[in-house]
Amino acid sequence: MKNISTYIENNKDRFLNELIELLKVPSVSADSAYKNDVLKTSEIVKTRLEEAGCDHVEICKTDGHPIVYGEKIIDKSLPTVLVYGHYDVQPADPIELWTSPPFEPVIKTTETHPEGAIFARGACDDKGQMYMHVKALEFMTKNDELPCNVKFMIEGEEEVGSVNLATFVKNNHEKLKNDVILISDTGMIAKDVPSITTGLRGLSYVEIEVTGPNRDLHSGLYGGAVANPINILTKMIASLHDENNHITIPGFYDKVEELSADERAQMAKAPFNLDSYKKALDIDAVYGEAGYSTNERNSIRPTLDVNGIWGGYTGEGAKTVIASKAFAKISMRLVPNQDWKEITELFQNHFESIAPDAVKVKVKPHHGGQGYVTPIDNIGYQAASKAYTDTFGQAPIPQRSGGSIPIVSLFEDELQSKTILMGFGLDSDAIHSPNEHFGIWNYLKGIETIPMFYKHFTALSKK
Amino acid sequence: MKNISTYIENNKDRFLNELIELLKVPSVSADSAYKNDVLKTSEIVKTRLEEAGCDHVEICKTDGHPIVYGEKIIDKSLPTVLVYGHYDVQPADPIELWTSPPFEPVIKTTETHPEGAIFARGACDDKGQMYMHVKALEFMTKNDELPCNVKFMIEGEEEVGSVNLATFVKNNHEKLKNDVILISDTGMIAKDVPSITTGLRGLSYVEIEVTGPNRDLHSGLYGGAVANPINILTKMIASLHDENNHITIPGFYDKVEELSADERAQMAKAPFNLDSYKKALDIDAVYGEAGYSTNERNSIRPTLDVNGIWGGYTGEGAKTVIASKAFAKISMRLVPNQDWKEITELFQNHFESIAPDAVKVKVKPHHGGQGYVTPIDNIGYQAASKAYTDTFGQAPIPQRSGGSIPIVSLFEDELQSKTILMGFGLDSDAIHSPNEHFGIWNYLKGIETIPMFYKHFTALSKK
Repeated sequence: MKNISTYIENNKDRFLNELIELLKVPSVSADSAYKNDVLKTSEIVKTRLEEAGCDHVEICKTDGHPIVYGEKIIDKSLPTVLVYGHYDVQPADPIELWTSPPFEPVIKTTETHPEGAIFARGACDDKGQMYMHVKALEFMTKNDELPCNVKFMIEGEEEVGSVNLATFVKNNHEKLKNDVILISDTGMIAKDVPSITTGLRGLSYVEIEVTGPNRDLHSGLYGGAVANPINILTKMIASLHDENNHITIPGFYDKVEELSADERAQMAKAPFNLDSYKKALDIDAVYGEAGYSTNERNSIRPTLDVNGIWGGYTGEGAKTVIASKAFAKISMRLVPNQDWKEITELFQNHFESIAPDAVKVKVKPHHGGQGYVTPIDNIGYQAASKAYTDTFGQAPIPQRSGGSIPIVSLFEDELQSKTILMGFGLDSDAIHSPNEHFGIWNYLKGIETIPMFYKHFTALSKK
Repeated sequence: MKNISTYIENNKDRFLNELIELLKVPSVSADSAYKNDVLKTSEIVKTRLEEAGCDHVEICKTDGHPIVYGEKIIDKSLPTVLVYGHYDVQPADPIELWTSPPFEPVIKTTETHPEGAIFARGACDDKGQMYMHVKALEFMTKNDELPCNVKFMIEGEEEVGSVNLATFVKNNHEKLKNDVILISDTGMIAKDVPSITTGLRGLSYVEIEVTGPNRDLHSGLYGGAVANPINILTKMIASLHDENNHITIPGFYDKVEELSADERAQMAKAPFNLDSYKKALDIDAVYGEAGYSTNERNSIRPTLDVNGIWGGYTGEGAKTVIASKAFAKISMRLVPNQDWKEITELFQNHFESIAPDAVKVKVKPHHGGQGYVTPIDNIGYQAASKAYTDTFGQAPIPQRSGGSIPIVSLFEDELQSKTILMGFGLDSDAIHSPNEHFGIWNYLKGIETIPMFYKHFTALSKK
């Protein structure tokens, strides 16, 4: 595919502008206020897939936000690649920390991205990475380089747990039939250190409500005599970790996959600089489970984090009140073999069991998903590895990610095919944070690398 | 004063309507958005004091909200009563829990108030109780029943710590010279159990900021490897109480006044029904410091309560984020002999000392005040006791309150006079809560009882 670099060079500006248009629509799936923007985004994706060469594209209604499905079948005897991505984005808050408005994309250069990066919510996660596949398809169809069949499934609920996608997949085995699933929704170690994600953590996300007295009370008249739901909530949450930062929920670690000393040694070879890690986050020290390295803590070990907490008076000044209720959102990242439904139940039972009589506690499961591992002897992995080698000039490193794409394990269960996670983002791209961005170099490199995957996968499939 | 009941009967509707007008203005001192409403309220109070017979009324500017000062000097050789109250109110949130808008007063009957109660923020604390004194003065001046001199000092910053009132008092010793200070900003045990508050708790109010990473992070990519400021904050707050609910701050209890077994036995005589207490709050159990009764926990023992907590994603749905910052507002109620500045410093030093290296912690002192005790052999207390006996037909019970009026101990230091706390509110009046109200019976009973205090205090002073 000599002409791919030329094609990218000639169409670069259009590739950028099309992505910028997509980023201007605030498709925040978690907040119903953006329902219409999410819908509008699905329609843009449909149009772009048609322009890129899909024969048949449809917007599939669900009980929530719609799924965009498209396909280009050139020969039923050839293998089929199913591309999955999502067009929804995380909420943008805290909005005041953005240096430019989250839904008014701008290109700025950074130390990591001297060629410039697009700053906008969803730039990397996942509009930018998803759109690389649309442009890669465009290249292949316009230049007669598509070596196999391709299907696209782009959803609008990844950031809220893909509940309706799960149903869609269960009900459409034939339509979604494929030989490999290709996803770009992860990162790589560095621009000069390509890597492929071979593991994902599972997720269990719950919301907690602690109720004390039936109304807010004067903290002078009742303070000390009545359970303060905020004090109780902090006590309960604090008790979920012991002094070594092990999680105290009974049975939580029972099924955790323990890596061999050899596997851990392999992992330790991945380039990592603790000082620059701390410098980048402006922290004096890292913090986590005793006995594990930073890279192990955020990849092969399960975690429990409070993602949000609120209760009582949070306005300006002082209010001497004992709140009636306190709330928290808590997520647990899980590792292979931990079942998210089982962990959610363990959490719920444990958390309710440690509540004192003086309060009422409700645990509401939000959503979750299983962890996932791709064996590196899988031909999909091998095809991806060759593709990176073609375009980066070196073989990628297999890497476990701490993130979760809950739907991936469901794909395997329902569609009996493995998922290859070809991510082109960087940890410094601030996904889920203010000032999320995606490097232009990474964006174009992805568009260049993806067609190589199709070529190698088709070839390896014939063997 | 035979004619007082007639006077009240004839002017009852006007007394209610004037209070309702006062309650319509949202004088929330904690929130700068209400600055003009606070100012407007001070002007209404000025007008009402003039109408009630004060010779000289002025609005005294401060660095914050103004103080309304008024006086009626009939004979310099007679004793002088200084009435203190406040026209500012607590914030109304959570607004959605009000059954009628907080600043649109309505009269409803309740089980406790079959004669009706005025529902509005500030109805009891303290507009309603403050205004009883204005109407009592009106009765005395219009009926030639004022037996001594009177001064009014009504401030607009009680709910935010009376910082500027303190300066005002320090700079106006001569102007504020008096023989006794009279305040109605507390409650009584029950409508048929009159009581006088003889003790107040001190207060220390602080705000906490815990900073982890310099930006919000993806909880998958960083979860487990970086200190989550919310998890850390909950751990730090939880550690402030031990398993017996004793406060763990070193030195916190050093100066706490320990009551004798006899004093505790006296206290235990006050009517209290644990079941109806729990029923009224809809709780299955009370909660507090081991070794003390409910009445002791909220009056003679110091406490530490979180009044507000916030951090991370608190919106609809789920966001898998590790917040950069977490916040809490914490207040400590103090008992006699604990110095609020010393306790604030102990808190600050301790809290900063328990912070792990992985986060930065800021403790910002908000405000505070000392506890207070009035001896029952004081002639002010005796005059109040006789006044209640006249109008309730029985002597009031001396009672320690868990609340704080930080300014009271400063009055004694600066003006060398004792404060008498004649409160007519009830615990069930929901001050600082949604649906605050004040019984019409209590309001009118206060107006009837206050002139008796003037009569008895003047008589006892002559002895």
